[in-house]
Amino acid sequence: MADADRTTDADALIDGLRTRRSGHNFDPDADIDDDTLAELIRDATLAPSSYNLQPWEFVAVQDDDRLAELAEIAYDQQHIVDAGTAILVAGHTDPKTADRVFEEWVDAGRFDADTGAELKSQTVASYESDQAGRDYAIRNASLAAQNLLLSAHARGLTATPMSGFDFEAAAEFAGLPADTVPVVLIAVGPSGGEEPDRLPRRSVDEVLHRESM
Amino acid sequence: MADADRTTDADALIDGLRTRRSGHNFDPDADIDDDTLAELIRDATLAPSSYNLQPWEFVAVQDDDRLAELAEIAYDQQHIVDAGTAILVAGHTDPKTADRVFEEWVDAGRFDADTGAELKSQTVASYESDQAGRDYAIRNASLAAQNLLLSAHARGLTATPMSGFDFEAAAEFAGLPADTVPVVLIAVGPSGGEEPDRLPRRSVDEVLHRESM
Repeated sequence: MADADRTTDADALIDGLRTRRSGHNFDPDADIDDDTLAELIRDATLAPSSYNLQPWEFVAVQDDDRLAELAEIAYDQQHIVDAGTAILVAGHTDPKTADRVFEEWVDAGRFDADTGAELKSQTVASYESDQAGRDYAIRNASLAAQNLLLSAHARGLTATPMSGFDFEAAAEFAGLPADTVPVVLIAVGPSGGEEPDRLPRRSVDEVLHRESM
Repeated sequence: MADADRTTDADALIDGLRTRRSGHNFDPDADIDDDTLAELIRDATLAPSSYNLQPWEFVAVQDDDRLAELAEIAYDQQHIVDAGTAILVAGHTDPKTADRVFEEWVDAGRFDADTGAELKSQTVASYESDQAGRDYAIRNASLAAQNLLLSAHARGLTATPMSGFDFEAAAEFAGLPADTVPVVLIAVGPSGGEEPDRLPRRSVDEVLHRESM
């Protein structure tokens, strides 16, 4: 790629990171179409994941009655209804994609079958504790969620992530199996107008530590 | 913003999401400079977080001996040394920024002092269980980590996230206080050349569920 091209793209990507906001003002009369929803999910799935397990699922809620029910589960966050689409991002607490994913690693020639089998058994073992399984679910699904938020921003949509909801009720509502946990709920839809100014951020000097905290 | 501008930026942002890769091929003779490191962290801190608590810290390791030690903690992932910079992204398990952040919400006129006090006590209460505190730490720090990876990509750098490391040893190595846990380790630096093709992704049809799983 030519340097000039890379610079242009770089600026736009960085600008995207810097201008994305978690808006709460949605147009209640406008929704996203199916193609846009599919593209948001596609961009989300390009996030990295441990050993490429891609341990995530996305439940899109668009039915009006169900959106109202979901807003109640999220402690009456009305903007979920106004957005028109809510996406529950969920994560696997078990390495249930491991068989196929390690086959893909071997098929791609990234390592031989024996190494693949060994790495697979190490990976499966790393999920053995309940805590580690839950951590994997939340970590990986959150990486995907941030891509989804940025993809929405790129498409001129407003999107806001929420973790203030009844997780048990949300899991039941979304029909999640026992090995899949809610991680973050995202309201997404066409903007309803201006958002307030961004709140202050902790400074780089405060959060960046050299060698040790 | 003019429509034409938005379309151009949108394409570049989406292109960034789609072309970002977790590379493992670093130039061992080239490192990032301090300004670049600060910009990566700055972009990371623009990620959303629950109630804007920004419950994250970044420990940048660049000393050669410490990089070698960290590579051992990460089960001998040699590319950590080649990258020249490793950033341990860590998350708060306690709402230790709550006092100042809720003051900022009130100062910004987003709600009055009484509402702020009530929301703060709800937020602090939501961290009460150890599990919830850990979930918050991992969720929010992971959102920031994905921004950091994309910021590196925009700058033409290679960056790869890792969760395959000894978490307890990493916490001690980085001097994390008891209320701050390692979430993801990112090796970042100038590219050392080509990366293999991207491995297959689970399809949109497989991971997108309508209304319920």
